[in-house]
Amino acid sequence: MASETGAQLHAFASELYPICRSITGAGTRATLDAVSRIVPLERVEVPTGTKVFDWEVPREWNIRDGWIKNAAGERVVDFQRHNLHVMSYSTPVRARMSLAELRPHLFSLPEQPTWIPYRTSYYRDNWGFCLTHEALQALPEGEYEVCIDSTLEPGALSFGEAVLPGDSSEEILIWTHVCHPSLANDNLSAIAVAAHLARSLATRPRALTYRFVFAPTTIGAITWLALNEAHVGRIKHGLVLASLGDRGAFVYKRSRRGDAEVDRVVEFALGAEGTAEDFSPYGYDERQFCSPGFDLPVGRFSRTPNGRYPEYHSSADNLDFITAESLGASLEACERICSVLEGNVRYRNLLPKCEPRLGPRGLYRNATGRNPSEFEHALLWVLNQSDGTRDLLSIAQRSRLDFSVIANAATAARDAGLLQAVS
Amino acid sequence: MASETGAQLHAFASELYPICRSITGAGTRATLDAVSRIVPLERVEVPTGTKVFDWEVPREWNIRDGWIKNAAGERVVDFQRHNLHVMSYSTPVRARMSLAELRPHLFSLPEQPTWIPYRTSYYRDNWGFCLTHEALQALPEGEYEVCIDSTLEPGALSFGEAVLPGDSSEEILIWTHVCHPSLANDNLSAIAVAAHLARSLATRPRALTYRFVFAPTTIGAITWLALNEAHVGRIKHGLVLASLGDRGAFVYKRSRRGDAEVDRVVEFALGAEGTAEDFSPYGYDERQFCSPGFDLPVGRFSRTPNGRYPEYHSSADNLDFITAESLGASLEACERICSVLEGNVRYRNLLPKCEPRLGPRGLYRNATGRNPSEFEHALLWVLNQSDGTRDLLSIAQRSRLDFSVIANAATAARDAGLLQAVS
Amino acid sequence: MASETGAQLHAFASELYPICRSITGAGTRATLDAVSRIVPLERVEVPTGTKVFDWEVPREWNIRDGWIKNAAGERVVDFQRHNLHVMSYSTPVRARMSLAELRPHLFSLPEQPTWIPYRTSYYRDNWGFCLTHEALQALPEGEYEVCIDSTLEPGALSFGEAVLPGDSSEEILIWTHVCHPSLANDNLSAIAVAAHLARSLATRPRALTYRFVFAPTTIGAITWLALNEAHVGRIKHGLVLASLGDRGAFVYKRSRRGDAEVDRVVEFALGAEGTAEDFSPYGYDERQFCSPGFDLPVGRFSRTPNGRYPEYHSSADNLDFITAESLGASLEACERICSVLEGNVRYRNLLPKCEPRLGPRGLYRNATGRNPSEFEHALLWVLNQSDGTRDLLSIAQRSRLDFSVIANAATAARDAGLLQAVS
Repeated sequence: MASETGAQLHAFASELYPICRSITGAGTRATLDAVSRIVPLERVEVPTGTKVFDWEVPREWNIRDGWIKNAAGERVVDFQRHNLHVMSYSTPVRARMSLAELRPHLFSLPEQPTWIPYRTSYYRDNWGFCLTHEALQALPEGEYEVCIDSTLEPGALSFGEAVLPGDSSEEILIWTHVCHPSLANDNLSAIAVAAHLARSLATRPRALTYRFVFAPTTIGAITWLALNEAHVGRIKHGLVLASLGDRGAFVYKRSRRGDAEVDRVVEFALGAEGTAEDFSPYGYDERQFCSPGFDLPVGRFSRTPNGRYPEYHSSADNLDFITAESLGASLEACERICSVLEGNVRYRNLLPKCEPRLGPRGLYRNATGRNPSEFEHALLWVLNQSDGTRDLLSIAQRSRLDFSVIANAATAARDAGLLQAVS
Repeated sequence: MASETGAQLHAFASELYPICRSITGAGTRATLDAVSRIVPLERVEVPTGTKVFDWEVPREWNIRDGWIKNAAGERVVDFQRHNLHVMSYSTPVRARMSLAELRPHLFSLPEQPTWIPYRTSYYRDNWGFCLTHEALQALPEGEYEVCIDSTLEPGALSFGEAVLPGDSSEEILIWTHVCHPSLANDNLSAIAVAAHLARSLATRPRALTYRFVFAPTTIGAITWLALNEAHVGRIKHGLVLASLGDRGAFVYKRSRRGDAEVDRVVEFALGAEGTAEDFSPYGYDERQFCSPGFDLPVGRFSRTPNGRYPEYHSSADNLDFITAESLGASLEACERICSVLEGNVRYRNLLPKCEPRLGPRGLYRNATGRNPSEFEHALLWVLNQSDGTRDLLSIAQRSRLDFSVIANAATAARDAGLLQAVS
Repeated sequence: MASETGAQLHAFASELYPICRSITGAGTRATLDAVSRIVPLERVEVPTGTKVFDWEVPREWNIRDGWIKNAAGERVVDFQRHNLHVMSYSTPVRARMSLAELRPHLFSLPEQPTWIPYRTSYYRDNWGFCLTHEALQALPEGEYEVCIDSTLEPGALSFGEAVLPGDSSEEILIWTHVCHPSLANDNLSAIAVAAHLARSLATRPRALTYRFVFAPTTIGAITWLALNEAHVGRIKHGLVLASLGDRGAFVYKRSRRGDAEVDRVVEFALGAEGTAEDFSPYGYDERQFCSPGFDLPVGRFSRTPNGRYPEYHSSADNLDFITAESLGASLEACERICSVLEGNVRYRNLLPKCEPRLGPRGLYRNATGRNPSEFEHALLWVLNQSDGTRDLLSIAQRSRLDFSVIANAATAARDAGLLQAVS
């Protein structure tokens, strides 16, 4: 079942793979359109020049073509073959120059001579080409013609948002970035997982409201926070999803707070399938959510983190690098996390002085003898601990009983009128 | 000396062993009478039907006889031979029936075929017999006559209480349950220890007031708490004593708070002779004292806890299962715990700026040379730490000096006018 | 370089070694004079009889000579040969007596028969001689003449103080005791280190004010605290320096608080070169600073602590026992500690919502690619953590980056207007 869902996720990633995304422009919009076919998104377009905290929304970048031709007029580097070949946000250029003049604009990975690197220059006007180190070394001296048929003009920054209302207006924010071109793990994997998580959640009752945002990284998160500054108080928990398709184990990065409920829940829900590590101020958009002026309870959920696999930010992060199995298991883990986040209620015992009678409420065996069953154990734990300050997760951890067993006992006690949820 | 006292304790348990106790009735009253010969008890009788929180005091149960006769008229199960044979709180019955009809009323332990189990049915009208699995399997088909000559009528729930006043009206509650029939470790052992602890404490000065309660478990504790709800604030420390006669090591179960002074003191006083474990909401009457509406600083002191030895709640929990040596050592441990609880004072240094002169107060050697003696070390520790917030136990632990050395130094400093106790 | 400085320190200790210091008197004044040639001291003289908390300033003790002559008139014990031979604060005496009468006034170390012990009798009028155990055993029976040519008269207790003003009026107190006679490690080593630390700090900018005090131990500290009681609030950090010349590793003794900033800083600054241990109320003048009525953030920095080396308080604590290398390294460690104490600022991020733009402020590379450099890592850490509550040391520890790297990044961010120091 994971494999079938996983195959769907991989197929979705494959559909998006060829699109040339950036922090603005047509490729990003096409990506949001594709996501909208899985979960309908509200599209937001923020005009170039809009002030967002210390930043402003940049010009919109679009590209049609890009190449380097040799003296024989052959395309030796060609955007049509791989969109990583043009440095993202390259200014338009059309010129003839010697190899020596061209060299400062060429980027390769000497240590991985067959991979094309991924480079950007968002905030400094420049142009460049990325190519394999083998190809770079094979270029003979001589004159070359270069062309980048791009535009950098006033436009907008685009992001998409889907809200799934729940019983409470408190929100779980699921955030994923959509600005990387043909890189599969970073971040088509997480786009696929987030879209399908939204689709799955849409069909079931929800205790909390979910807000999914698909946006470019850094400037997208800054823009979103600037537009939503007055509303961040409704974010009860948040997860930045990234790099969820590789073969590595799960890695959860805690929020800046380090002991937020989402931190405790994810670590618990992953169990032996993952590890948790402390917050650090580099990575993805958790950087913005966890800046000291916001300090939101937002962690990051990924497999192998950015920068810790050699394929990172290169053409080797392709569709073979991500697997259907990993994608499917990532989605399942997200569902499990959401289930615990929603179910992690704090209750108040309404008969807190001494134990209440369980028998007349249909909560106890008939004849007392030796040790109580697991359900009764869980019931006693929940009744004893529910003073309005402890959530079910902490009760599960203190009792060493399964969260589901504790949650079931709590539901039974609530239905019997013994417990009341506190908000 | 422990062996002599231990032998007394074992003899007392032996005296009580044949009595058929339950949560109400004559057997329990006879037990309280016997305890009163060791330490005079004030008897409290709470009428059937009295509302106590979510519960009410049940009818009083008394039993004269009970048996199963076979077709030949022979008693094949006989209450006169062992009072565990009749399920506690059995309704009266007198009938003839086939073995098939009788079977749902018969209880045995297949995994321990020579032991009689202990069963109760306090809150659902039923009757039953407990017998060895061997005896059960030896019963031929055929007709049987059954008789339980019991009464379940309005009456009272009985408990006994002894108060030993101390310098302070703050109390140490010593609680033990008296509702189990012929079971030696659970709980004649603790009844014997509690009674003799009271006798021993009665003859010495007491810094704190002691309240000993001998009562039935669960409904007894609930009833006592309902009657004493306005006064529980005077309970500074509490211990539920149970199962103190077996050959196992001491096990202290912390209060729900987990870091109450009694928790720290007992763990310290036991040292390597025992272990401490976290609170859990099953066990004995700590369940009620530690319900969230009370959350009192009450832990449980036992040897092998309930349910962790095979003899538990069976006829194998007999007078051979408990030893004079264990009983004697349990009493000594209780005395040690009480001594530390009483002595664990917080002081305020009355000359807190710089060290005071010790010599003129007779607290120091005459000529200074190398390292101070242990007494002087303890004196410096007590003077330095006594800012009104730290108790002597914490000073003993921080200084790694014996509690008695610290306590002696504190007494000397107090007598010299350097320290004042804070309440 | 350490060896050159170390040699200077050793030479300074050697210069002071022959002087007979005590808690008052000419020897202590001569020592302060010598220190004043390294760092000018303000001299304070507190008259005999001045009340200081529970104590009063004692009479001033001065000594010219002391000896025991045998029947042949030969000096068998002679103050001129070693000033440890006369018990400090001995009352004057001139008498003839038998060996039996003399014995109660003779002190030796049987376990170290070739060493002269160091003894004092400050607060009880007495006289005595210290000698090697070998010499004691060699004394034949017979009559002896004893002479101690001392005075105990109204005078003053002397200490010296040097203040080095800094940007802030908050102070680092550097305290060292000057009352021990010819003992090299205890405490000529620390006198030498403290004096040269002051000289070194005097020539550089200081974020904090430094106050150096050279005073007798116990009564000196009590007197200083009594005179300065109204001003102790300005002590932000304090270090008692003692025993810094032996070959042992550094040992830092935490303040009574245990988690004061100075505790965290010293432990961090020493790294693998030293260990930290918990506060205890015996040792040197940290006893007074950490008495409960003051509870100042003052720790003690030493090598092998008092009482843990056999040479302690004996003639074996001589100039061979301390090394130039140890002295030099101790001074360097003090400089390192002071540097971290001064640099351990808490900042507030002035653009705390999302990350600020680093490029326009000259704080970032031009083209983004793979992982940021160490400086940029440090910058992100400092910006993220600087919410006004966390000091740079805690940021260095959380980020596992060097303190100097963190401090440099903070300075750059402050200079770029991104951070503001909080006091």
